[in-house]
Amino acid sequence: MKRLALVSALALFAALPLQAIGPKESGSKNLAILIFPGVQIIDYTGPWEVLGHAYVNNQPAFRIYTVAESTDPITTSMGMSVNPTYTLSAAPKPDVIVVPGGNVDPQLSHAAVLGWLKSNAKGAEVVLSVCNGAFFLAQAGLLDGLEATTFAGLIDELKAAAPKTRVVSDRRFVDNGKIVTAAGLSSGIDGALHVIEKLLGKGAAQVAATSLEYDWRPDSGYVRASLADRRLSAGYDAIRQFQRNVVRHEGTRDRWETAWTIQTNASAAQVLEQLDKVFADARGATRRGPGAWRLAGDDGSSWTESTTVRPAEGRGPGYVVTMIVVRSR
Amino acid sequence: MKRLALVSALALFAALPLQAIGPKESGSKNLAILIFPGVQIIDYTGPWEVLGHAYVNNQPAFRIYTVAESTDPITTSMGMSVNPTYTLSAAPKPDVIVVPGGNVDPQLSHAAVLGWLKSNAKGAEVVLSVCNGAFFLAQAGLLDGLEATTFAGLIDELKAAAPKTRVVSDRRFVDNGKIVTAAGLSSGIDGALHVIEKLLGKGAAQVAATSLEYDWRPDSGYVRASLADRRLSAGYDAIRQFQRNVVRHEGTRDRWETAWTIQTNASAAQVLEQLDKVFADARGATRRGPGAWRLAGDDGSSWTESTTVRPAEGRGPGYVVTMIVVRSR
Repeated sequence: MKRLALVSALALFAALPLQAIGPKESGSKNLAILIFPGVQIIDYTGPWEVLGHAYVNNQPAFRIYTVAESTDPITTSMGMSVNPTYTLSAAPKPDVIVVPGGNVDPQLSHAAVLGWLKSNAKGAEVVLSVCNGAFFLAQAGLLDGLEATTFAGLIDELKAAAPKTRVVSDRRFVDNGKIVTAAGLSSGIDGALHVIEKLLGKGAAQVAATSLEYDWRPDSGYVRASLADRRLSAGYDAIRQFQRNVVRHEGTRDRWETAWTIQTNASAAQVLEQLDKVFADARGATRRGPGAWRLAGDDGSSWTESTTVRPAEGRGPGYVVTMIVVRSR
Repeated sequence: MKRLALVSALALFAALPLQAIGPKESGSKNLAILIFPGVQIIDYTGPWEVLGHAYVNNQPAFRIYTVAESTDPITTSMGMSVNPTYTLSAAPKPDVIVVPGGNVDPQLSHAAVLGWLKSNAKGAEVVLSVCNGAFFLAQAGLLDGLEATTFAGLIDELKAAAPKTRVVSDRRFVDNGKIVTAAGLSSGIDGALHVIEKLLGKGAAQVAATSLEYDWRPDSGYVRASLADRRLSAGYDAIRQFQRNVVRHEGTRDRWETAWTIQTNASAAQVLEQLDKVFADARGATRRGPGAWRLAGDDGSSWTESTTVRPAEGRGPGYVVTMIVVRSR
């Protein structure tokens, strides 16, 4: 009886046709990763590892190489020494380009780098920026008229650098077709999985995520506190229930954390903005972004407050809001 | 009124003392990452980036460097060329050691590598292996009498390689005090966050995760399908409700996905084992691990089935079980 129920469940699958069709793509695409002194490690190695787990006809879907102004060793953000595969001028024409972030500012005046990006983006199928790699794209004019995102702390700066771009701050990545921009650092992993999904289908992306043992939740709605700046629309009701819906409260001498559930149709931004209004009255408080503050203790000690907003699962519309206060070290 | 409620909520924080205490640790610890030809990129760069976001007194908590048999360039798993910081003999004595995986087998007979690991592990505070980096630890005798884990596909091999070790396959990492072993690839990110929590407190780990915009869920219970081998304890009732609790069913020509919720006290392994029993009867099915199969289409096409188990949130004890069938490419 129990066995029978399972067989019936599996019949869902059996009823679907297992027919041979040609793969969407065959052969290997050229995938260039732009690197430079101070490139952020995870910004480019996360996508590299993810994209290296995409397959077509049991062969790697991408031939991955790095491109830099010279092939001399480059020192990354946290001190890794890497040797670029190609110079800009010698690099094969890429089908996919990954533009990581890091110490980007000094690069933005390098005509050779910008020129390579502009000319190669034309023929590429996808250009993925990660973190403040978006500023390369902005500088190259590749974001004009599009939506884009970047590292949480640089949202306002990107708006200034790319005035013809609608900069969004509440998504882990933004897909305009060819141009995809991911948010900060680890977001590049999700951005790369999305690129696989775009080019090879969701199944290929799921296989890559599974191979990496990565808990891929493309619809999780996770955004960093300071990414949640969606417009207010429904008043201040979102925070009414804070007091009666504490789901977790824990503290030590140098760290406290409290989480509430909030049932509301309001935006995450609403909660954060209201919290900000209260913090703004606090003595010694300095705002670092939506829901993110530097606080002063009575004795001169310094504390960091950050707020994380996640959609509440299985509880109707609403959020789990977590406030974390940590002693600065 | 609304404002008042929030102020009261914040009083939870205000009631806690903001006192200055000395940091748990001061100064920078030496952190050595062992690298070798074929080292898996994300296995060591994930922890590198994470650990680089840990701070003490506003200074990086770890001085991170790589160690290898020689300082000649090393080519990683997917073709990145990196220059090790130190040879084994010249490397500073590490306080923390990270041992990534990748093409590990050829290294296990290198006496210099094993000797370095054995002698430096003695004085280290923490040794973190990632993926099949656990086999270095096994070979060095560092796992004897302990619990450990590794990449999902190598659980049985680790049991054979480390007969005095209790190998577990349902956790993202295993902490024995000094010796911490993480599961496959991206699990190293979570393993590294755990190391920060161990050495510098949960707040420091949360700050690092937030800096990386990483959706850290240390208690998520996420395990890869083939990691879920917990012992059966409650019969086969876990799968009874498959038919009436489908939460998602979607399909294309080359990918299908169905998710069910299951309310049960039974183990994740129970579901997977029962699914395996049904698949075992299917024509052309080859088992690749718990809940993971290679299936043959009627026309000779090849398909991959994998099952992911996640604790159901907010629905009482139970799971969301997702079966994914993808055409092999």
